[in-house]
Amino acid sequence: MRLLPNSTLLRLVRFVQLKANLSSLNPTIREILNNPPDTNSVVTVNGHIKSLRTSKNVGFIDVSDGLSSDTLNVVFPKPDTVLEKQHFKVGQSLSVTGKWIESRGKQKYELQFDVDESDHKLSIVGNVPDDFPIQKKTHSLQFLRSLPTLRHRTTGLASVLRFRSLVESKLIEYFDRNSFVKVSPPLITSSDCEGAGEQFKVEQLNKSAGEFFGKPAYLTVSTQLHLEILAHSLNRVWTLTPCFRAEDSNTNRHLSEFWMLEAEVSYVNHVKQLTALVEDMIRYTAQAIKDEGVGYSDLIKARFSKEEAAKVEQRWDTVLLLEQWPSITYTEAIEIINQVKCKGRLKGRLEWGDSILTENEKWLAGTHFQSPVFVTDYPSEQKPFYMPKSHESVYDADRPTVACFDLIMPEIGELVGGSMRELDHDKLLAEMKNRKMNSADMEWYLSATLNGSVPHGGFGMGFERLIAYLGAMDNIRDVSAFPRAPELCPC
Amino acid sequence: MRLLPNSTLLRLVRFVQLKANLSSLNPTIREILNNPPDTNSVVTVNGHIKSLRTSKNVGFIDVSDGLSSDTLNVVFPKPDTVLEKQHFKVGQSLSVTGKWIESRGKQKYELQFDVDESDHKLSIVGNVPDDFPIQKKTHSLQFLRSLPTLRHRTTGLASVLRFRSLVESKLIEYFDRNSFVKVSPPLITSSDCEGAGEQFKVEQLNKSAGEFFGKPAYLTVSTQLHLEILAHSLNRVWTLTPCFRAEDSNTNRHLSEFWMLEAEVSYVNHVKQLTALVEDMIRYTAQAIKDEGVGYSDLIKARFSKEEAAKVEQRWDTVLLLEQWPSITYTEAIEIINQVKCKGRLKGRLEWGDSILTENEKWLAGTHFQSPVFVTDYPSEQKPFYMPKSHESVYDADRPTVACFDLIMPEIGELVGGSMRELDHDKLLAEMKNRKMNSADMEWYLSATLNGSVPHGGFGMGFERLIAYLGAMDNIRDVSAFPRAPELCPC
Repeated sequence: MRLLPNSTLLRLVRFVQLKANLSSLNPTIREILNNPPDTNSVVTVNGHIKSLRTSKNVGFIDVSDGLSSDTLNVVFPKPDTVLEKQHFKVGQSLSVTGKWIESRGKQKYELQFDVDESDHKLSIVGNVPDDFPIQKKTHSLQFLRSLPTLRHRTTGLASVLRFRSLVESKLIEYFDRNSFVKVSPPLITSSDCEGAGEQFKVEQLNKSAGEFFGKPAYLTVSTQLHLEILAHSLNRVWTLTPCFRAEDSNTNRHLSEFWMLEAEVSYVNHVKQLTALVEDMIRYTAQAIKDEGVGYSDLIKARFSKEEAAKVEQRWDTVLLLEQWPSITYTEAIEIINQVKCKGRLKGRLEWGDSILTENEKWLAGTHFQSPVFVTDYPSEQKPFYMPKSHESVYDADRPTVACFDLIMPEIGELVGGSMRELDHDKLLAEMKNRKMNSADMEWYLSATLNGSVPHGGFGMGFERLIAYLGAMDNIRDVSAFPRAPELCPC
Repeated sequence: MRLLPNSTLLRLVRFVQLKANLSSLNPTIREILNNPPDTNSVVTVNGHIKSLRTSKNVGFIDVSDGLSSDTLNVVFPKPDTVLEKQHFKVGQSLSVTGKWIESRGKQKYELQFDVDESDHKLSIVGNVPDDFPIQKKTHSLQFLRSLPTLRHRTTGLASVLRFRSLVESKLIEYFDRNSFVKVSPPLITSSDCEGAGEQFKVEQLNKSAGEFFGKPAYLTVSTQLHLEILAHSLNRVWTLTPCFRAEDSNTNRHLSEFWMLEAEVSYVNHVKQLTALVEDMIRYTAQAIKDEGVGYSDLIKARFSKEEAAKVEQRWDTVLLLEQWPSITYTEAIEIINQVKCKGRLKGRLEWGDSILTENEKWLAGTHFQSPVFVTDYPSEQKPFYMPKSHESVYDADRPTVACFDLIMPEIGELVGGSMRELDHDKLLAEMKNRKMNSADMEWYLSATLNGSVPHGGFGMGFERLIAYLGAMDNIRDVSAFPRAPELCPC
């Protein structure tokens, strides 16, 4: 071992050493295109081959680095000489050093690789098999679902994940601006928030003896009850976390593991304050993204087809064009469905108390209102134990309803559900007993009502559903990086 | 049922109705203090009673609404008359409408409630029992841990959760600015990333027959492998998600459920690029918060004691003052520990290949370097299967090391761990076999190396540890809203 200088000296030496070595990340294709280097300067670009074409005198490679739908065109003269050395295939990753030149094509610049220039370099960094399945042609989303580790190499699905990141970022901005505190409620819990028993149980894999947590533990179906506790301390709280439902449903709207945006607000007294918040949140997010332009145009440019692109624009218009989204009560919704949708018919008519099926929700928002629509004040029986009765202005003792709302979107149905929360300890306890829930497990939640409680309410929004709606995707499995559903956990 | 107008008319009617009803959230105490209303105007404030005092002629109530450490002073003359009607207790929530006046106290303004003014109002919204445990006096953190639903009502712990939210927001800003895509890898997985078997198993609670996912499924211990797949598509990805470890360890540094910030970057070739990224990320976050001032001063103002406040400042200086954090190899770390810490002694000396214990990590960062310090190139045996061998500049075939790093912080030890990732399919497979891992379960991961792979690396940071360090908290259970640990899942 070599002798070391004393510690102070060593520190100084190290700093000097490090400074010289410090290297940062390589520029991205978007950064290079946005801040183009001088023409004729030598530039290095890394990325995957998206497409290839050659003529007699020149070859072209479209390179994408995954950070935008922009590709960079690499041009190489003397294709015969180049192709003799390199066997290019779509999907390979490569590194190209060449000359930055003005382009006569669609893009303003391109990278010219000249095999005879000593400072030009082109190397295949990662090869693909000859039957690499992701090609330039459009693949069906269903086919892509069979390739869980490769499907995000397509421009379309990559753009959806980038869009999801952007939406999350704007939502954070929204809640920051409105003084909300982002909190991290637990995913492992000993309570069942919804009382529906559709939970996953959590156990230590190499179990020694007894329960790891000293009692049975489950994956949360909603973080609402914990959020309510935190809203008593922090006033306005929100979270975006995974939630889990062990439902045996294989639909394009359900996942066993999904991300839920939940918020709880103290010192609100009326459902209308909550619906105003939800509308403001979604509008803000969409408007901010549209105003900035880059993320929105990336989403549209990367679509699988022109029809898909038009669908994106139409959905954003639906969210943004109306000055305000309509709001009706459940009772009014039933009346509208019976008097307009089922006018004169018996089939499909609803009785007060019936559930509004997804088909009717889609009709209400998509056909009737042609807008997102809030439906408020549902029958108590259809909703969980923690909702108080409706505001006196709409309450009818013969048809008891609770102070709640759903936000219904055209084409997808329910996106958000929320309510005021019951503050009366005895009413909560009675309601839990009515529903045969185990109130002993919920003592921690009930105790909040006796310890300086405040009027509050909140909501939950399926995050993948929002992305699917704004991204004009039909199946939420395509907006989740690795979707989980019954029989679906390949990795 | 009343007759409805036709749908178009109905829509119009609704909009008009709604506009009139639309109500927003009440202003917060901070908003009122930052944009003070005209003096003598009538203002309503909602919040919890933090403290109370009365003299013969006047009473004072300190009200906090949980969104900052700022309290608002409510002053009431004629305390005898007021107290005859109201029995105030610390912890009650209340709503006060009174006159906004200039204050002669520490704050510029206060709210005057005059029991004889007809437009003044004071009501207790939520009561507390007489033995409400959260009082003005300082409670020990250990005592507060016994009150999982009430402890965040203390100014100190509430400020820590607000700080956590702020740090998350700044990290998102950092990654946005550096073109990273935030992704949501799955928490339910069929693979064991670390191969250590410290996993929780996930099963349907009301199991019908067979496995819900068609195979055994676990809670993730790290999302790294999925992030690597996504980095091949999206180039620069990061996530902040819960991770789970079924370790039977009850320490102040471990949780069974914790949040991990993980990032993977494509087109990097050297560990130094990763350490530069980590350093930049943490510095950016701390500097941005300190520069903005409000969140930082909130954290300090809300501390339990002056010593605690000084500790916050000292830790931020440690992160920000040095121009660059030192970086040493594992081999150098062993030399320093033996030659400086254990100078001349036999006890505590380390052999090459020994683990650097937390005690030595704390000494290295806290005493020797007095700075966060990167330790790179650990012996292969101490690290997981996916790390490639060290860069040739430091590799020694007799003492094989891998291209990895840990970031060691004063007082807490390891905060971040990261590495380059092996790209060679056969080397990965051989290493997995060496370690008796089930490579069949990992075929999806291995396949990435054969399908256009790119050089990449990444890291994981325990989010609660970062909050504990920057927030100067000694136990990560106090920076987690509802911590989970063996035998600890009360709600």
